[in-house]
Amino acid sequence: MIVVMETNATQEQIDHMAERVRNLGLKANVIVGTQRTVIAAIGEKREDTKESLASGPGVADVVPIMAPYKMASREVRPEPSQVTVRDFRAGNGVCGVIAGPCSVESEEQLLSTARAVKAAGATALRGGAFKPRTSPYSFQGMKEEGLKLLAAAREETGLAVVTEIMSTDDVDLVAQYTDVLQIGARNMQNYRLLEAVGNVDRPVLLKRGASATMDEFLLAAEYILNEGNENVMLCERGIRTFEQHTRFTLPLATLPYLHRRTHLPVVIDPSHGTGHTYMVPDMAVAAVAAGADGLIVEVHPDPENAMSDGYQSLEFGQFEAMMKKCRAVADALERNIDGCPASETCTS
Amino acid sequence: MIVVMETNATQEQIDHMAERVRNLGLKANVIVGTQRTVIAAIGEKREDTKESLASGPGVADVVPIMAPYKMASREVRPEPSQVTVRDFRAGNGVCGVIAGPCSVESEEQLLSTARAVKAAGATALRGGAFKPRTSPYSFQGMKEEGLKLLAAAREETGLAVVTEIMSTDDVDLVAQYTDVLQIGARNMQNYRLLEAVGNVDRPVLLKRGASATMDEFLLAAEYILNEGNENVMLCERGIRTFEQHTRFTLPLATLPYLHRRTHLPVVIDPSHGTGHTYMVPDMAVAAVAAGADGLIVEVHPDPENAMSDGYQSLEFGQFEAMMKKCRAVADALERNIDGCPASETCTS
Amino acid sequence: MIVVMETNATQEQIDHMAERVRNLGLKANVIVGTQRTVIAAIGEKREDTKESLASGPGVADVVPIMAPYKMASREVRPEPSQVTVRDFRAGNGVCGVIAGPCSVESEEQLLSTARAVKAAGATALRGGAFKPRTSPYSFQGMKEEGLKLLAAAREETGLAVVTEIMSTDDVDLVAQYTDVLQIGARNMQNYRLLEAVGNVDRPVLLKRGASATMDEFLLAAEYILNEGNENVMLCERGIRTFEQHTRFTLPLATLPYLHRRTHLPVVIDPSHGTGHTYMVPDMAVAAVAAGADGLIVEVHPDPENAMSDGYQSLEFGQFEAMMKKCRAVADALERNIDGCPASETCTS
Amino acid sequence: MIVVMETNATQEQIDHMAERVRNLGLKANVIVGTQRTVIAAIGEKREDTKESLASGPGVADVVPIMAPYKMASREVRPEPSQVTVRDFRAGNGVCGVIAGPCSVESEEQLLSTARAVKAAGATALRGGAFKPRTSPYSFQGMKEEGLKLLAAAREETGLAVVTEIMSTDDVDLVAQYTDVLQIGARNMQNYRLLEAVGNVDRPVLLKRGASATMDEFLLAAEYILNEGNENVMLCERGIRTFEQHTRFTLPLATLPYLHRRTHLPVVIDPSHGTGHTYMVPDMAVAAVAAGADGLIVEVHPDPENAMSDGYQSLEFGQFEAMMKKCRAVADALERNIDGCPASETCTS
Repeated sequence: MIVVMETNATQEQIDHMAERVRNLGLKANVIVGTQRTVIAAIGEKREDTKESLASGPGVADVVPIMAPYKMASREVRPEPSQVTVRDFRAGNGVCGVIAGPCSVESEEQLLSTARAVKAAGATALRGGAFKPRTSPYSFQGMKEEGLKLLAAAREETGLAVVTEIMSTDDVDLVAQYTDVLQIGARNMQNYRLLEAVGNVDRPVLLKRGASATMDEFLLAAEYILNEGNENVMLCERGIRTFEQHTRFTLPLATLPYLHRRTHLPVVIDPSHGTGHTYMVPDMAVAAVAAGADGLIVEVHPDPENAMSDGYQSLEFGQFEAMMKKCRAVADALERNIDGCPASETCTS
Repeated sequence: MIVVMETNATQEQIDHMAERVRNLGLKANVIVGTQRTVIAAIGEKREDTKESLASGPGVADVVPIMAPYKMASREVRPEPSQVTVRDFRAGNGVCGVIAGPCSVESEEQLLSTARAVKAAGATALRGGAFKPRTSPYSFQGMKEEGLKLLAAAREETGLAVVTEIMSTDDVDLVAQYTDVLQIGARNMQNYRLLEAVGNVDRPVLLKRGASATMDEFLLAAEYILNEGNENVMLCERGIRTFEQHTRFTLPLATLPYLHRRTHLPVVIDPSHGTGHTYMVPDMAVAAVAAGADGLIVEVHPDPENAMSDGYQSLEFGQFEAMMKKCRAVADALERNIDGCPASETCTS
Repeated sequence: MIVVMETNATQEQIDHMAERVRNLGLKANVIVGTQRTVIAAIGEKREDTKESLASGPGVADVVPIMAPYKMASREVRPEPSQVTVRDFRAGNGVCGVIAGPCSVESEEQLLSTARAVKAAGATALRGGAFKPRTSPYSFQGMKEEGLKLLAAAREETGLAVVTEIMSTDDVDLVAQYTDVLQIGARNMQNYRLLEAVGNVDRPVLLKRGASATMDEFLLAAEYILNEGNENVMLCERGIRTFEQHTRFTLPLATLPYLHRRTHLPVVIDPSHGTGHTYMVPDMAVAAVAAGADGLIVEVHPDPENAMSDGYQSLEFGQFEAMMKKCRAVADALERNIDGCPASETCTS
Repeated sequence: MIVVMETNATQEQIDHMAERVRNLGLKANVIVGTQRTVIAAIGEKREDTKESLASGPGVADVVPIMAPYKMASREVRPEPSQVTVRDFRAGNGVCGVIAGPCSVESEEQLLSTARAVKAAGATALRGGAFKPRTSPYSFQGMKEEGLKLLAAAREETGLAVVTEIMSTDDVDLVAQYTDVLQIGARNMQNYRLLEAVGNVDRPVLLKRGASATMDEFLLAAEYILNEGNENVMLCERGIRTFEQHTRFTLPLATLPYLHRRTHLPVVIDPSHGTGHTYMVPDMAVAAVAAGADGLIVEVHPDPENAMSDGYQSLEFGQFEAMMKKCRAVADALERNIDGCPASETCTS
């Protein structure tokens, strides 16, 4: 940590801050510059020392040098992690594909979708039973009935089931029916919920909040890891910017950045990341090209009549075509789309 | 709602969409323009019709005309609401001041602060007992012990107590000790929590999420109102933008906008809204000038040694000076700072 | 255009606005909704009518229906355009690659780079002679001397030359030495400069401003097209968002969006779009996968000693490896990297 | 400057970077931390050293410590500057008010506005003769004819005239008729134009670009100061964020920030900063409360029929009411609205 003093800081203030650094159990290295003095604070602490020093007298700024997360970091675990559950794999060179409807609406809707996405090469099925909706007047999901349908679809197809969990109250219920627990973007900093899923023996798909920084995202993962659950996948689903022609702005540079910082797999959501059906395939293919460890894509038998997110859902044929392109790109780059080994045709 | 068709939409697509609008129970008014056709959908629905229509064939866009919220709207309730609890009032021409430490740290710290902010004119005391922290390694609050100290401070000073609630699990506990339940920015779209506080007989201070739109903010309030709790205060605490010289960007135009759209009181948080002690007084005074119905300000006896947010906390003397300026401005504009009637000196 | 009236607008205000719409030469279709009245304004105008109506009495909002640009629009010209100059082509299924140093620094630096990027498959050479620099104390470019070196490099390699033009004063000079005129992001709304290059017989590479909307971007192109120059390429180079781990946020969904709205070719700049050398190849490959009509990439013989942008420049070997991946992906998707026909090896 | 090495940087890389720092004429202080090594580079340089070091081997980040601007800085000139021209003053405790139409449209329109704003207490008249418009099909201003009308209005009223300059071609012409040269937000990084106005003996009003950081803003001012023109006013006119209910987001914390960093006066533009007439007075009053050194406000005799920006312009009566509130707040805070000394009524 570097404590940058104001240009007009007094010697007394500098001494005071050096003392404070030492009181925190750190070594204080005072460097007198041409215009300013800075104090390098050397030691192990990553916690609240920045906040604590930033309000000191004569302090202009405090610049952290160490990443604030540990267990998510490549410094601690250099090799990439892989999350595996049933036939689904994500990470360490394998791109797993999760597909399915935004909301579970009916047995017919869910089963037909499960069959279609499996045929096209997906190894996991998404479907919301508890839906976080911006308006209290919108459809809120089928709840436990939806979870049962998901379990039935898994039974038939063997697909791993991914569903969102919105509350600590539902942990036991949802864990009973599902393979992967999804934490939605709105709950990325719902720390109680993160702790709760950190104590469950299920992989977690953690979506980035719409305005979360990378450090905040990795620290949210750290809450889960810190409780003992090591099976965390990070999911980039777009950020809120001034752009209005997309629902969110999908920053694919998240991939190389996170691959450098963390060992956790990184999944891309081109459906929420764009908000428009016609953009989804291009962004899915681009994500594979940029090294995604997974995709999560909304697919619906009849998007026009979907109860939610129809405008960003693919029809079965569109999804199949998208998968073909993704496989072609993965093959070209010698990467692996899960469930579809290089040089095989999944749908044959 | 206006359904805008693509320029090359076919007559069949137009007919199809008009039919869909009618099937939703709305009247369809088809308007043939020079280049495009649009369909005006007329009727009462505000729910999911937009989503449902947006994925129709040949549809370029769907433009909502009605606000998606009802109970928060001035259309439904034209007169401004006022939240009152103990001596604290906010709204309808009165600006209530909430002040206190970020975190409750000790009896001495809390009581000395309570006395100081009351003397300077605040009528409510803030203090976090359950702290949502970005890092799992940061101080997480004193929990119930902190709630008890808040209650003790109320006992002595008569200040209304405002504290954050992070989980549905804590509703009963927190409601037992506190006068106002605060929903933090990170939980603005934690819908279960919103519903939970909507069922408690306590006013709620709902903070705007760091990237929430105004509609999302008002719909979050709607979740609370819709459960039957009418005592909701909205709190602008800054948004996430590209700016780095402030912790968040504080958009004071939220005040005239919300005053036009909703009857709910609007409180400004200049502490989180700037992240720097030296900016807080200027923004507090500006908020009063722009018509704030309340202020919530972090005050600490020794910011340098605060366990959280010291860099944006005021010392007692700074807070008192800020209050004097706020009162002067309120007097000049013939508005009322709660607890400090025009032309009186609170500290005398 | 849809004029949305306030819920409490009077009949007099509605009549007044309908009259105003008619006075603008448009047809006014008044639609009385359940809560609001809207007026659909039908006709040809795209100019300032929105502004003019938005301040009318009782008007809540004015929603434009037609795109504000004409010549850039696919409505006017449905087929994709292709820009060609020397061996460089961009658009209509061909992805042209522009590569070279940020700044022209010396004959040796420029020529070695030109040879290397040509060998790897680029067909155009970038290099700045007039540099827009954030600080007046930074290196400002070699100016005419740099232009001469670019012309010499073209002479030797046959690469088309792309260079930035910063001022109307330099149009004649720069046009004398260069094949493509680049308008930088900072000058995207320097309308005099847009008009000036609109009157020159050279293709223009127009970079998106860091906070420009798509409409603003296309209207900037419209300034050039409107002067008679039809050879415009649009360049996405990243937008300014709250993200700090990249220099800018690169939104690749710009590709499907612009491909739907405009016939103009869309070039991606992964160098400025990320600001980090290690991210550039992944984003270049992703751009090709998402359908880019061109890439513009910073390449330098010795990035560490570059006079500008070294941190985002590729070394020769890195560029060659990136090109191999781009070709592999283009082949897999049956697209065409210019200068490198499918199934050929450029460097052989 | 602090060069932060990667956690896995080799000793060779550390030595190499220390050598590079020394080669730049700086002193290199190598600090070995628990996990990383950092190199503190000590010396006078502020120019391109950051860029130059950031691409070195094993470098994770380079953190600048000194502000990149000099002449704009309070480090160089601690006392606040004041810009004065005719009766207009801004800075050093005085808030000057500039008011007038967006565009000069006619003699009648301009003169009536000039008289009205002077009567209400403004000391400068704004009015655009050369208009930067997003669309080439919009009204582009009256050009020299407009400048002549501005000069005539000054003749009659004595108000200082402020008008925008869009191109280096127009410097002599505009300088001939005007008192203050305005650089618009779109041209904030049009460096040639900044240099040009830096060589003219007229105060400059420099507007912040819609996505400019504070450093970029101050470096743009530095371009002007560096040419010898010391009369620069900075103008905050709102930034582009995800918010859509305002045209731009107006961050008033710009005031305390800039007052701490620079001696230059800071003017607030509540008209562009909100984009809605009804928000302008509240934001103007808030700006005065927060310490603005000036206001620039759009006023029009008939906003509904304005050729540009009618939706954010005040009528004469609205402007007069706003000025009364501003004066009341200035009086309360013992500040001074120019032209309206405390305890006087300007309109009497």
